Amino acid sequence: MSFPQVEAFRGGKNLIRVVGHRGARGVLPENSMIGFDFTLSIGVPLLEFDVVLTADDVPVITHNHRLHAPTFRDASGQFLTGKEPKVSSLSFNQIQQFEIGRLDGHSDYGRRFPDQAQLDGVRVPKLQDLLDLINRPEYGEANLMLELKSDPDLAHDAAYLDRFVTCVVQQVRAAGLSDRVLLHSFDWTLLEVCQRQAPDMPSSYLTQLPENADDLGEDSSKAVCPDFRGQSEKIPQMVKQAGGALWCPYFADVISEDVALAKELGLCVAVWTVNEPADISRMIDLGVDAIVSDYPGRVQRHLSDLGMRWV
Amino acid sequence: MSFPQVEAFRGGKNLIRVVGHRGARGVLPENSMIGFDFTLSIGVPLLEFDVVLTADDVPVITHNHRLHAPTFRDASGQFLTGKEPKVSSLSFNQIQQFEIGRLDGHSDYGRRFPDQAQLDGVRVPKLQDLLDLINRPEYGEANLMLELKSDPDLAHDAAYLDRFVTCVVQQVRAAGLSDRVLLHSFDWTLLEVCQRQAPDMPSSYLTQLPENADDLGEDSSKAVCPDFRGQSEKIPQMVKQAGGALWCPYFADVISEDVALAKELGLCVAVWTVNEPADISRMIDLGVDAIVSDYPGRVQRHLSDLGMRWV
Repeated sequence: MSFPQVEAFRGGKNLIRVVGHRGARGVLPENSMIGFDFTLSIGVPLLEFDVVLTADDVPVITHNHRLHAPTFRDASGQFLTGKEPKVSSLSFNQIQQFEIGRLDGHSDYGRRFPDQAQLDGVRVPKLQDLLDLINRPEYGEANLMLELKSDPDLAHDAAYLDRFVTCVVQQVRAAGLSDRVLLHSFDWTLLEVCQRQAPDMPSSYLTQLPENADDLGEDSSKAVCPDFRGQSEKIPQMVKQAGGALWCPYFADVISEDVALAKELGLCVAVWTVNEPADISRMIDLGVDAIVSDYPGRVQRHLSDLGMRWV
Repeated sequence: MSFPQVEAFRGGKNLIRVVGHRGARGVLPENSMIGFDFTLSIGVPLLEFDVVLTADDVPVITHNHRLHAPTFRDASGQFLTGKEPKVSSLSFNQIQQFEIGRLDGHSDYGRRFPDQAQLDGVRVPKLQDLLDLINRPEYGEANLMLELKSDPDLAHDAAYLDRFVTCVVQQVRAAGLSDRVLLHSFDWTLLEVCQRQAPDMPSSYLTQLPENADDLGEDSSKAVCPDFRGQSEKIPQMVKQAGGALWCPYFADVISEDVALAKELGLCVAVWTVNEPADISRMIDLGVDAIVSDYPGRVQRHLSDLGMRWV
């Protein structure tokens, strides 16, 4: 059985897909509507982004479980200090009090994105806002890599996982977009719930080997990601067996044998988050299906120079 | 007498203006509508761009007098080779046969913009298209630094200069935008014509010292720019005497004495084209009024980190 949204991420002869990471974090505020719109408008129809549930069960688009201090400003325009509040402890309306259009340049995190445009008046979007955007006729080719960020404090709470998946799946179905969405996570238990609830929306399995450092200033996924120590060469089989359609390894983990094996198994290989020119080149040489990047334009430049396509 | 479009480019306490160079050449194809729209949408309301006249007297937005091979592709999708045709030898409809949404990565010019998004279906815009864009209600704060590129082959032809200025000025007036446009050029003779024809649209004087190399792969402006050898410290006075409201020096030419003198004379100082982080910092330290950059987001980041404004 073939799913259109899986084929949308599959590469081919002279074809490697480009996926905008959190929209286009290198260019515009991450997980913002203006960032998503930018990425689609440059002819990159594949978007990766993160969904978390608010206290009133609204799926919102933000990466961390807590309001991320280097990107969240309060009503007085100051970046948050002290203990970051949890998204799940705040209502959607409370979260709208914060702005997310700038980076704190004095933080390690902020220093990672020196070209990002700085905007005022930008707020955390709802999942619904993005579904509405890609339902516009001009974005009929858009497909979503919807990452469900399971709360590490609740990762073993079956009722929570069920409710989280239900909230997300219902919105996607109501928008008529179940054939344009992949459900994407580090949490293999959660992806099992996704497959049970939504067999029409294929699963995309994120992996990261424990020996690789987390990116600076980000929530670690290691609390929910399986520990692959000693069996890294078996990951493609494990993803296949778990029912995955895509395998999404951290780019630095991947060697050509992995890509060959995954392709043999019929998996699509989408590597993240590939920003440095030398890394982009190596991933192209490896023949991955898709490259997830904060700089989608930079990946287009590489592919264009090689006479390759991304759509 | 104070002109609103001059004040729109003037800095102040904690305020340095950001001007998008050819839209945002580092991010999107230069002198394209999508690039202009991007720059305005990130809250940078000041646009620099270049106007050349077609054979049928349509003011179009493109930098060089000849179709620039590293950015122009023919109907078969190939970058131009051989002698580049002159814009003034082609009708507007002929120019629309070419696409301008990609860079030739094998050219010196192309290598300068490794992050630029690569698009298909992008064509040379008319000046009219940009005037229509900034007449949209959401872009009511936008102001234009309209560079008139006088043909070096015709720089001494008074009838040509007159016709060129007339074509441009008529369109701006008809759009009701004469209070939001600066007429900007390296050609001081042409700016004289502008002042005669359009005293309501202030002049912005571009300068570049002859000892500085031209940027790779660009038309030289040295054929039309006065030769300042031996009198570089007098440039602000010369601009003032010529009737200028803005002085726009090449950033590497400027020292703090120049900025102080220009400000004393009431001139606005807008430096171009400032892309490297160290250069952006130096221009901020110099206290220029405005920074023209291919990476407007990068300049915003610098200013935001310093607690400074750009609007």
